[in-house]
Amino acid sequence: MADFQWIGKPLPRKDAPTKATGSAKFTNDISLPNMLHGRILRSPYPHARIRNIETNRAKRLPGVKAVITGRDTPGEKYGVFPDTRDQYLLALDKVRYIGDEVAAVAAIDEEIAQEALNLIEVDYEPLAPVFDPLEALKEGAPVIHEHAPNNVSSEVLIEVGDIEKGFTDSSFVVEERFDVDGLSHCQLEPYTSIASYDRSSRKLSMWMPHQSPFTKQKGLSNTLKIPLENVRVLKSYIGGAFGGRSEVSPCDFCAALLSIQCGRPVKINYSREETFSVTRQKHPWFITIKIGADKNGRLMAAKIKIIADGGAYNSTGPIAISNPHSMWESLYRVPNVSYKAVRAYTNNPIRGAMKGHGVQQLFFASESMMDMLAEKVGLDPLEIRLRNIVEEGEILNSGSRVTSCGLKDSLVKTSEASNFKEKWEKRSGSKGIGIACGTNICGFNMGFRSGSTAYVKFNEEGSATLFTGTTDNGQGNDHMMVQVAAEELGLAVDDINLISADTELTPLDPGSYSMSSTFVSANAVKAAASHARRQLLELAAVELEANVLDLELRDKKVYVKGSPKLGISLKKLIVKGYRKGEPVFGSGHFRPDINYKWDWTKKGQQKGQVTGTYTFGTVVAEVDVDLHTGQVKVLKVTGAHDCGFAINPLAVEGQMEGSFGFALGQALSEKLMMDKGQVMNANFTDYRIPVASDMPDMDSIIVESNDPNGPYGAKEAAESVHPAAIAAIANAIANAAGIRPTALPITPEKILNLLQKKGQRGEGADHL
Amino acid sequence: MADFQWIGKPLPRKDAPTKATGSAKFTNDISLPNMLHGRILRSPYPHARIRNIETNRAKRLPGVKAVITGRDTPGEKYGVFPDTRDQYLLALDKVRYIGDEVAAVAAIDEEIAQEALNLIEVDYEPLAPVFDPLEALKEGAPVIHEHAPNNVSSEVLIEVGDIEKGFTDSSFVVEERFDVDGLSHCQLEPYTSIASYDRSSRKLSMWMPHQSPFTKQKGLSNTLKIPLENVRVLKSYIGGAFGGRSEVSPCDFCAALLSIQCGRPVKINYSREETFSVTRQKHPWFITIKIGADKNGRLMAAKIKIIADGGAYNSTGPIAISNPHSMWESLYRVPNVSYKAVRAYTNNPIRGAMKGHGVQQLFFASESMMDMLAEKVGLDPLEIRLRNIVEEGEILNSGSRVTSCGLKDSLVKTSEASNFKEKWEKRSGSKGIGIACGTNICGFNMGFRSGSTAYVKFNEEGSATLFTGTTDNGQGNDHMMVQVAAEELGLAVDDINLISADTELTPLDPGSYSMSSTFVSANAVKAAASHARRQLLELAAVELEANVLDLELRDKKVYVKGSPKLGISLKKLIVKGYRKGEPVFGSGHFRPDINYKWDWTKKGQQKGQVTGTYTFGTVVAEVDVDLHTGQVKVLKVTGAHDCGFAINPLAVEGQMEGSFGFALGQALSEKLMMDKGQVMNANFTDYRIPVASDMPDMDSIIVESNDPNGPYGAKEAAESVHPAAIAAIANAIANAAGIRPTALPITPEKILNLLQKKGQRGEGADHL
Repeated sequence: MADFQWIGKPLPRKDAPTKATGSAKFTNDISLPNMLHGRILRSPYPHARIRNIETNRAKRLPGVKAVITGRDTPGEKYGVFPDTRDQYLLALDKVRYIGDEVAAVAAIDEEIAQEALNLIEVDYEPLAPVFDPLEALKEGAPVIHEHAPNNVSSEVLIEVGDIEKGFTDSSFVVEERFDVDGLSHCQLEPYTSIASYDRSSRKLSMWMPHQSPFTKQKGLSNTLKIPLENVRVLKSYIGGAFGGRSEVSPCDFCAALLSIQCGRPVKINYSREETFSVTRQKHPWFITIKIGADKNGRLMAAKIKIIADGGAYNSTGPIAISNPHSMWESLYRVPNVSYKAVRAYTNNPIRGAMKGHGVQQLFFASESMMDMLAEKVGLDPLEIRLRNIVEEGEILNSGSRVTSCGLKDSLVKTSEASNFKEKWEKRSGSKGIGIACGTNICGFNMGFRSGSTAYVKFNEEGSATLFTGTTDNGQGNDHMMVQVAAEELGLAVDDINLISADTELTPLDPGSYSMSSTFVSANAVKAAASHARRQLLELAAVELEANVLDLELRDKKVYVKGSPKLGISLKKLIVKGYRKGEPVFGSGHFRPDINYKWDWTKKGQQKGQVTGTYTFGTVVAEVDVDLHTGQVKVLKVTGAHDCGFAINPLAVEGQMEGSFGFALGQALSEKLMMDKGQVMNANFTDYRIPVASDMPDMDSIIVESNDPNGPYGAKEAAESVHPAAIAAIANAIANAAGIRPTALPITPEKILNLLQKKGQRGEGADHL
Repeated sequence: MADFQWIGKPLPRKDAPTKATGSAKFTNDISLPNMLHGRILRSPYPHARIRNIETNRAKRLPGVKAVITGRDTPGEKYGVFPDTRDQYLLALDKVRYIGDEVAAVAAIDEEIAQEALNLIEVDYEPLAPVFDPLEALKEGAPVIHEHAPNNVSSEVLIEVGDIEKGFTDSSFVVEERFDVDGLSHCQLEPYTSIASYDRSSRKLSMWMPHQSPFTKQKGLSNTLKIPLENVRVLKSYIGGAFGGRSEVSPCDFCAALLSIQCGRPVKINYSREETFSVTRQKHPWFITIKIGADKNGRLMAAKIKIIADGGAYNSTGPIAISNPHSMWESLYRVPNVSYKAVRAYTNNPIRGAMKGHGVQQLFFASESMMDMLAEKVGLDPLEIRLRNIVEEGEILNSGSRVTSCGLKDSLVKTSEASNFKEKWEKRSGSKGIGIACGTNICGFNMGFRSGSTAYVKFNEEGSATLFTGTTDNGQGNDHMMVQVAAEELGLAVDDINLISADTELTPLDPGSYSMSSTFVSANAVKAAASHARRQLLELAAVELEANVLDLELRDKKVYVKGSPKLGISLKKLIVKGYRKGEPVFGSGHFRPDINYKWDWTKKGQQKGQVTGTYTFGTVVAEVDVDLHTGQVKVLKVTGAHDCGFAINPLAVEGQMEGSFGFALGQALSEKLMMDKGQVMNANFTDYRIPVASDMPDMDSIIVESNDPNGPYGAKEAAESVHPAAIAAIANAIANAAGIRPTALPITPEKILNLLQKKGQRGEGADHL
């Protein structure tokens, strides 16, 4: 292990005091002079034609500065993929879900804006709605979009080997259907946009929570028909994203259009109810999964059928249903696969990306199935996994290569640390233990936009400013980037100022998508800092009359290895660079070698490298199931995640604990309750997220597989253990109660139903 | 002449609409959330000891958040040069002029802050003041600073050749004393500072008018004892500088200290009266000048003695009295020189830099003397100048080389355009004509800080962002930088966004001092754009299968010369750069080859290159003098300035007209009226600057000498004609009225006095 000074150490984050003292400015904390406040009028119908919109009364209300409808937009549709754009900035023809944006108002305060909404008269012709994706896909169902008469939003078909033969050759086959409810990301920060359009320069400046300022900039430029260089997205602190802030939002468009119309800044701040109901949600899934194994428990075939409820618009549609396969195929070797997923349009709210898209749904199903298969084969859950797991160097079905793999390590370490085998075999009373694995990816194919660039400049004292386009949604990217630069430059973390996530100031970055920040963006930062480092060493080599290879850069000085007292300070070297006419400056770029192509029209899988690298993990969950009430208490979670290398172990553990919390809610309590397209629990009283007292004991084990391409071997911080933890809890419940949960969340009601079916309800401990 | 697309064209400035519509944000337009307002308590005495300051009553006033005195400062003195620092951030021991900063208050509004000032009790012990610099230099005068018992703030002695022999060898000798009153820069924007200190990150952000954010940053860091990387000076629009915003100001310090104490942003907005009285002013000068010439009118010797009234503190002291010599020596060949200048401390307000420091004072005197000499020799004013002027390639007394020189051109063109000779010889009635020359420099020795660096990055559409540390005080630097980058990159001016003058975002730049923006900073921008251009051409060469040398970059594409239709777009090249893993990025640096060393302790001139290059100009002024009232009407100004090359002729003409306006005020009406250290006319009613109706007809002639080192041959826009115009007006008055003005401003009263002395008062036209 190299002798690192700033990386590999559990460091508190630079932004911690700023956030703890409240001085961090989130978008809603920003107030611009002369700023107006906007509100959006939303459809009360799940499905209706718009006959007419009358805005005159609203416009006449004193304090109202602008009212816009679809007619004031450029009339473009937007969406994540060029060929699946289906949503107007403001509804033009129809509304397709309760909450669909119909008009927007800017006024001198929020109350007047809200009052003006009440004065807008919309003449709706209600249409028959459809809420169940299975119904929506049936012939004769109400058609939501003209371009999709069968309500298919996206579909994916991946076929590997010979699926029929795979099952024929299997000694054991299991099949089951799993249902997963929709979720909200529950970012603590409600969605807020501020747009400031300067009429004289024709420049639009925007602040909002996002996962990449460049994605927002591009979407706004395309859709509003403003040249890219005239749209600037600036940095603000972000209170969580979790995939839910991937796309441009009607909130952004409305703020921008209102600001353009008024020539004044406009802020639109979503209520908590809006944040629950009209921002992207997690897809509800219906999964039918069938797997077969040979007599030794080696997987022979897997047939997966998914129907996803996409809601009213396409959003990240095709990725939402194909991405999970990329993670799934990197867990176990399966020679024969049929993976078919259909995303249906319904009149429900719009579903989009959330933490690896459907990976949690799919792994909940497939990792439950592994336990079911193990039972049939007569193996324990650990053994069947060890017989099937992917290993380093393996080429997956897609053709993608696994460059590093700590999966086996994670299985061994968690099962040992938790004493899994013994506890699993000798389970007693109402307590149970479960194990499950997870994987994830680092970066996906965005063409040239998959790459990140970074710059480092220096002030005359030798301190540095780092420029990176990376977004920090709260996970700690900002600190990580500074840590990496400090390590390369021999500076202290406090000697580096960071300029990040600003389309004007920082170079292109893929954004905080697909776990690419560490693998891609930190790699670019490392390259930029190394570039500057080389210049510093070369300047020092002349000065110290030494060979560059004999020099060390550390503690703000360069010295011949072993003689730290005879060094030359960074400050002097920087000045030397100026005097030489070549000021020290670092520029670096990294793009992962991804060549897999998405081709949605063919619905098939093309061969190639899917992602920069894969991460792996295992979670062992221990639960106590109250057989009388159906209540589940998660007692302990032991998780191991292969992050490649922990640049900041404290941050990796923090992210792992965050994943456990997320998983806990998804496994046991979180769901968006829907009634005819209406979200019924759009608040934190009725929508139950885990709180501190719900959290189990957590043991976070860091596995370091040292990826050959990651920065210092690093990959990503914790995403593998999120799906693993959900499935591990389900498996632990099965172990505890002898029932097989097949639907998320595993509420007390569902447990009691399963127990009842099994004739065990209220029977106490000795149910097995 | 090369076929340029964006430079050499008279282009309206990009910031014009922004300024015209009022959307440009000057410092006082910036309002930060939670911002407090500060006011400064000032000394009512010109000279007094501070016995005690009692702030408790002020602190108890509701709404007051902080009160600071000198005891709350780090106790450091500040000043432009390390060895001449003599001013405390807030007075500690004594006050030395009426307006000296004694305490400062931050409150929730300006009125409460003002009220709090009235509650601060300062116990002063008044000391004997001295206001006349000649008195101050006498033995027994009140001592203002302990370190300067003789009240000498700075002195300069430059000796060349043998001055006594020079006069002995002269056939003609003239000698005269000239007096020049003090002036205000009259920036339209009153001085304002905003400081925002974030306690959690320990970062200080500041906005204020300045000539270089880096100078402010460094001064604040040094004096407030905050690490350089924790002080950020951000860009705001600036309403004029003219040298008067060169230094850190008590306004900056007080805002910063108050913000640090409160943990809230603090704005201090000077009143117009403060802006007149307590910001730096122009030095009043007393000049005795003696010149000798041989029988042909060739200059043999010049003896110059200057006493400058420096006011209470040193400020730019040594530069203020030595800089004019650098300009003066670049006008005429003089083999024997004695130049002695003393800057005296007095109890007047502080005098600092203003447009070339004392060049206007010195040239007013020396160019008046040239006419007086010409009369003795029997030559006309044009001829005597032509016999003495410096030419291209000449090595000056300092050893400095003149790399380009349009001085002769400027003399010939202005005299021809104005029909000078004929009008001068055949003057009639009350009208007269005068001619005078001026020079200036481009950049001076700031060590490695004399150099500028610039960066260019691109967005994926091929548009660019230019990063430069250059400051635009209103003269148009921002637009010029973009024009240069556009020319090099084949982009339109609108395709380039500019990030400038921000210590965190932009690389080190010497600032808008000593006319270095074009020669130094634009050169760095050109270098950065050329660097990117080379990368674009190399990418295109592969694509077009052509030699780089055969390629042209224009109209956002690269093509083989002569075949513009077969080109490849910049957008495609940028994407190719990304795909290749080497995103296009430009970095460039320029530092003028200046090696002259200032050595104030030796008071002597050391040999070396004084500046990057010199500019030259001539002005012919035509006046009408009312011999009854003494009123002077300037009818026409014909000026020629050698700007090297006019990057934007419209801007050069604008700057020339600005110089003419400045000169008009200085020549005829502007002066700070002082009474015992008190400015008596600190407002635009009593302090008379020229208004539009005062302006003469102006003919601005651009001379292009194509400097070998300037960007496209450019040097600076208009500074040579400013001193020339003042002297030309004086010479025209002499021509019109047969009197020799020896004091600025040449008020009607002074003219009537001179006429009276000559016995001509009220005599009408035939006075000669």
